[in-house]
Amino acid sequence: MSSTIHKTHISVAQNASGRNLNVPVYTIDSGQPGPNVYIQSSIHGAEVQGNVVIFHLIKALQAQTISGKVTLVPNCNPVGTNIKAGEYTLGRFDPVNGTNWNRGYHYDETAVTEFATTVSQDESMASITARFKSHLLDGIQAKKQRPWGLGLAQQLNLRLQTMAAQADIVLDLHNGPVSTRHLYVPEYLHASATLFSIPHVIFIPNHFAGALDEATFCPWWTLADILSKRYDREYDFGIAAFTLEMGSQEVIDFTDGKQDAASIMAYLRTQGVLPECKLQPSNMRRVGVYLNDYKTLFTDFGGMVEYVAQPGEYIQAGQPLARVLNIDDLDTEDAVQTINAPCDLIPMLHFPSASVLSGTQLYKCFTEYFVITERTD
Amino acid sequence: MSSTIHKTHISVAQNASGRNLNVPVYTIDSGQPGPNVYIQSSIHGAEVQGNVVIFHLIKALQAQTISGKVTLVPNCNPVGTNIKAGEYTLGRFDPVNGTNWNRGYHYDETAVTEFATTVSQDESMASITARFKSHLLDGIQAKKQRPWGLGLAQQLNLRLQTMAAQADIVLDLHNGPVSTRHLYVPEYLHASATLFSIPHVIFIPNHFAGALDEATFCPWWTLADILSKRYDREYDFGIAAFTLEMGSQEVIDFTDGKQDAASIMAYLRTQGVLPECKLQPSNMRRVGVYLNDYKTLFTDFGGMVEYVAQPGEYIQAGQPLARVLNIDDLDTEDAVQTINAPCDLIPMLHFPSASVLSGTQLYKCFTEYFVITERTD
Amino acid sequence: MSSTIHKTHISVAQNASGRNLNVPVYTIDSGQPGPNVYIQSSIHGAEVQGNVVIFHLIKALQAQTISGKVTLVPNCNPVGTNIKAGEYTLGRFDPVNGTNWNRGYHYDETAVTEFATTVSQDESMASITARFKSHLLDGIQAKKQRPWGLGLAQQLNLRLQTMAAQADIVLDLHNGPVSTRHLYVPEYLHASATLFSIPHVIFIPNHFAGALDEATFCPWWTLADILSKRYDREYDFGIAAFTLEMGSQEVIDFTDGKQDAASIMAYLRTQGVLPECKLQPSNMRRVGVYLNDYKTLFTDFGGMVEYVAQPGEYIQAGQPLARVLNIDDLDTEDAVQTINAPCDLIPMLHFPSASVLSGTQLYKCFTEYFVITERTD
Amino acid sequence: MSSTIHKTHISVAQNASGRNLNVPVYTIDSGQPGPNVYIQSSIHGAEVQGNVVIFHLIKALQAQTISGKVTLVPNCNPVGTNIKAGEYTLGRFDPVNGTNWNRGYHYDETAVTEFATTVSQDESMASITARFKSHLLDGIQAKKQRPWGLGLAQQLNLRLQTMAAQADIVLDLHNGPVSTRHLYVPEYLHASATLFSIPHVIFIPNHFAGALDEATFCPWWTLADILSKRYDREYDFGIAAFTLEMGSQEVIDFTDGKQDAASIMAYLRTQGVLPECKLQPSNMRRVGVYLNDYKTLFTDFGGMVEYVAQPGEYIQAGQPLARVLNIDDLDTEDAVQTINAPCDLIPMLHFPSASVLSGTQLYKCFTEYFVITERTD
Repeated sequence: MSSTIHKTHISVAQNASGRNLNVPVYTIDSGQPGPNVYIQSSIHGAEVQGNVVIFHLIKALQAQTISGKVTLVPNCNPVGTNIKAGEYTLGRFDPVNGTNWNRGYHYDETAVTEFATTVSQDESMASITARFKSHLLDGIQAKKQRPWGLGLAQQLNLRLQTMAAQADIVLDLHNGPVSTRHLYVPEYLHASATLFSIPHVIFIPNHFAGALDEATFCPWWTLADILSKRYDREYDFGIAAFTLEMGSQEVIDFTDGKQDAASIMAYLRTQGVLPECKLQPSNMRRVGVYLNDYKTLFTDFGGMVEYVAQPGEYIQAGQPLARVLNIDDLDTEDAVQTINAPCDLIPMLHFPSASVLSGTQLYKCFTEYFVITERTD
Repeated sequence: MSSTIHKTHISVAQNASGRNLNVPVYTIDSGQPGPNVYIQSSIHGAEVQGNVVIFHLIKALQAQTISGKVTLVPNCNPVGTNIKAGEYTLGRFDPVNGTNWNRGYHYDETAVTEFATTVSQDESMASITARFKSHLLDGIQAKKQRPWGLGLAQQLNLRLQTMAAQADIVLDLHNGPVSTRHLYVPEYLHASATLFSIPHVIFIPNHFAGALDEATFCPWWTLADILSKRYDREYDFGIAAFTLEMGSQEVIDFTDGKQDAASIMAYLRTQGVLPECKLQPSNMRRVGVYLNDYKTLFTDFGGMVEYVAQPGEYIQAGQPLARVLNIDDLDTEDAVQTINAPCDLIPMLHFPSASVLSGTQLYKCFTEYFVITERTD
Repeated sequence: MSSTIHKTHISVAQNASGRNLNVPVYTIDSGQPGPNVYIQSSIHGAEVQGNVVIFHLIKALQAQTISGKVTLVPNCNPVGTNIKAGEYTLGRFDPVNGTNWNRGYHYDETAVTEFATTVSQDESMASITARFKSHLLDGIQAKKQRPWGLGLAQQLNLRLQTMAAQADIVLDLHNGPVSTRHLYVPEYLHASATLFSIPHVIFIPNHFAGALDEATFCPWWTLADILSKRYDREYDFGIAAFTLEMGSQEVIDFTDGKQDAASIMAYLRTQGVLPECKLQPSNMRRVGVYLNDYKTLFTDFGGMVEYVAQPGEYIQAGQPLARVLNIDDLDTEDAVQTINAPCDLIPMLHFPSASVLSGTQLYKCFTEYFVITERTD
Repeated sequence: MSSTIHKTHISVAQNASGRNLNVPVYTIDSGQPGPNVYIQSSIHGAEVQGNVVIFHLIKALQAQTISGKVTLVPNCNPVGTNIKAGEYTLGRFDPVNGTNWNRGYHYDETAVTEFATTVSQDESMASITARFKSHLLDGIQAKKQRPWGLGLAQQLNLRLQTMAAQADIVLDLHNGPVSTRHLYVPEYLHASATLFSIPHVIFIPNHFAGALDEATFCPWWTLADILSKRYDREYDFGIAAFTLEMGSQEVIDFTDGKQDAASIMAYLRTQGVLPECKLQPSNMRRVGVYLNDYKTLFTDFGGMVEYVAQPGEYIQAGQPLARVLNIDDLDTEDAVQTINAPCDLIPMLHFPSASVLSGTQLYKCFTEYFVITERTD
């Protein structure tokens, strides 16, 4: 079997020349029942590998029967991708005002609480779900039309969220600076951690800090919590949202991208999107951490850094993470200073430059981590 | 009479060469009773005019008798001042991660609530004040010593706050992009609005968003509120904090700076710092606004902009604020698009560049403003 | 009478999203004999006022009878216009490698020398002109097709030069940082200095440094010199090229733009392009300088600068140009350092930021200037 | 035996806070006859690995007997090292004006020609050398004192050159973007190519483009040429200057740095600086190219790039160098475009970002290369 891709473009911003900045939207709509899936990549402009993953996904999905609908939006932030400062891409924040491109999605807890009051005990899940989706989209729409306007990052985010908010499954493809693969999973989807072929998992609470995954799951999680408490039964709306960190920024790798696409295909199969697909999540060791134990190590001093510990390595307390060269003391015992691991940890990523000021994020690390699955062969 | 200035330097950061970045601290300590005053400038690196104001203040204060102590910290962010990107200074946020340099000060509402439980009804104001200052400093100190470190902006902020938190009066000198003079006043100090020679005043609530003025007054305001409610009497700890916007960024003007220094001297006289000073706040029209009515106008489209409305001008609803040139329609009626005022307003500032993307902050405006004082001659 | 504008777009580059970056090309081709005129603006991305001038020119030209052809290319560098770094536009050079956007035009002196050998004494001016234009275009074309490719600035430059090299009159519209109006005139067109309403004129020699005006006139000037010497008579091919500096960068001003357009219309009238136009160059004082005497003043120290001397002001030797504030000496006699004019001069422009490192271009100044015309009423 | 290091600091610039930017200068002066060696690193701010090499050199030299004098200047451009734009270091050019930090050294060919006229046939080499060094230093000194000042990059360059111009051997330590080790050798020192343990060598002509190695050898090479022709005998002043590209920018690697230091020690031994040292250049294959055959491959289109060919790999004509992903054609045959090698080549370096505009330098490559030495075991 095969499926047909439909391609459109949406305008997400205008540049200083007054030109629309367009984003391609690839859609496969099977017309058959099944989940509505939304996948985007490169909201941070230097995190481009997700575009390769979407390229391989499109190829793979075209060869499959689909149940439901899949929407894929590569390179979703054309502003971020195109801001160069020196040879690299300054893609993480708006160069005008420093706003992180992944912090302006919409979530209004009060609106959820208010909506909850309209749900009676005997309203069907389907009805609640349909009404709440519509309610969420109305909220996004209202925000887009504020009479005094909105900032660029927020405008961009809301246009993307208008698509994502209609989906049941949302995958936001990112990269770290120099990074190993890891996955953000909301705590209520704990079991989903084993459905991807990603060795490191961060479990996150029902807390909104502006990102797309949070903006997607927080309203449903909150609504489920309110209704479950009120009516003393489980409410599971089947909404899932994940942020996938597919390795390092500033890298395009077609071979890795094919594997990552296969990992996502296997997950989609478990969700009923690919009835004829045979792909399985890998048999692999998976290690998890709660967000509180996912720690950032800042340096207290500036200098030139060798990153000794590699992302994904198991490091014991006291082992060296980094060495810093002290330019003014090359002739003394203080020429090299070592930064040691404050506890047992696994670095997920490190800063991509060898030159750091004091207060730079050197590493982000799993601490107090635990095994989710062991490799069994 | 005259007073003696004492000068020291503190290190606020280290650069990538491993060198300390130092900030000068000028102090006049009279040894006489009186308020403790803290004044800093240029936390945003392109907002340099406050340094000229401090220059004139130092001259003027040296010629005065002082009651209490005055600490002046010009150019308090040497990182921000020294990041060039093109000819201008990229001083508003950390170029590495986009963090606004004025959002990392410390405030912990829970710590205030806890402290409040230790205050008995008959504890003297002097005792509460001394204990609470010490408590606040302990909180800052504890944060500085977090084992995993802190980001650069926060490290810088906390080192400055360690000085500011010891003061009774804190003045943070800023500039807008292209801007008229305006002043942020916490609502509980409403009456202070008339003590400066600044024509535009924004009254701000007890809400912490990370800035120095808020970090200074929020804990005392919160404590006063708790205790006033609990013991049913007024608590006024005499702590004042203001953000002064002294015109436009990227400008050094010695003549204007002298006037701004005189405005601050007049205010300090009203607070008992300058017993022999004769300076008075100007006889002038002052207009105020509540923070909710201080609105940002974003543009919905990109293009090249003429800023028609000048900062400080009274604009009526429907009058033109800006005109945008449309490069692709120079030969049609759509060549120029006009953005009109959505209501009566006074622009405080506008964006400093003629080229804007969609979602750019074109103007920040007083709406629903009211007269505080009229000029009487 | 009126003329009809024709509008097309050409692609001058591709961005990192793989999209073409287009530039509008407005053309009036009268079909009548007359000069071929090429006018472009904003090759430096922050120098946007020329776009307003072209807007007014299009309006004015539409109301005129044209002899010959006029091509207008506003916003000719969409890469430069759209690189923001902080609030300002980083438009002067390629942010990837620092290449000035106005230094990659093509000129090959050897090719001129070789062409000259093909000109016989009795070849008509029309024939030489036609053959040489074609020869120049071939050279540009050959360079564009180099098998290993070309850098971005050069690709952009050559695509624009392909249009400019077909013209008889080339006007390149620029702005200075903070600047008064001035005009670059090749020495062999000395008399043209009085045909614009621009008070300051720099006469430049037959030296190629990469800019469009030089790339336009150097080959014709060189050819005329060779042939004049060889055949001992005057060769004047009637090719003119000027760089017009229309005030300050980062400014859009419709009123000023209308005056600048009128100045260009008056010039075009003198060249026979506008047979029914009545506009005259202004009756005004014009001051000139040779390029050697157009001096850049660099500062030897870093600091915060007040620009005392305004662009266009007549400054005498020893008068103050700038004052620099010394942050570490606010309490001493060394707090302010004055930079005085080393000789009588007229500043054309100054640096647009108040914060400077050592070695910053503070001012560019006319020295040893002379009066070209005096105002006569 | 051991040698004593002496450490001083020189100021090379002032920042916008008015502070001196200092550079450490490490010197070993044996007091014994022998060459005067000058080694600097990091003139391009992101090319930091040379600092590690100098660290290891200092350690190694301290354990050696020295003949002559060695001066080591790590991190010689504190401005470049400290300009961040996003996470990376914008170290290649002045962020204010785009000036490459390695293009402002001084060379005045006319001054060499004039000096040559003062050399008689019987003047001793020692005398010519001493007089010419002094002459060169006078030229640098005169330039530094120009009354209208100099740009920042040039001021920095001239202060470093004042040290380098006193040396007989100058090593300038650089890195490429993503790069294999390679070495620039002036053609007249062809034999020196085998004295370093660096596998790739570019032979450069007597042409000055502003870099330190050229500024060092051009005057001596030119003088030798003039005198050799005039007096019909060989003049060899024993002046050597090399640019060493020690791998990739933005990397600190202590292990690699130790090997690179050993390579330099071996070279210095061959020049008589280290009489007791036993280190030899490696037995290795070395491949050379003339500068004209060292080609830059620019891309004609923008997009997202996988760098297939690795620096140092031997690539045959027609083999793939890079693949570019086309975001708007992920569903078609045009999704991936391959850029093939136009001829047999060895890439030395590729662009460090996966996102490129049209006109980006994708690769720099050896073409028409030749074997200098083969590995013999």
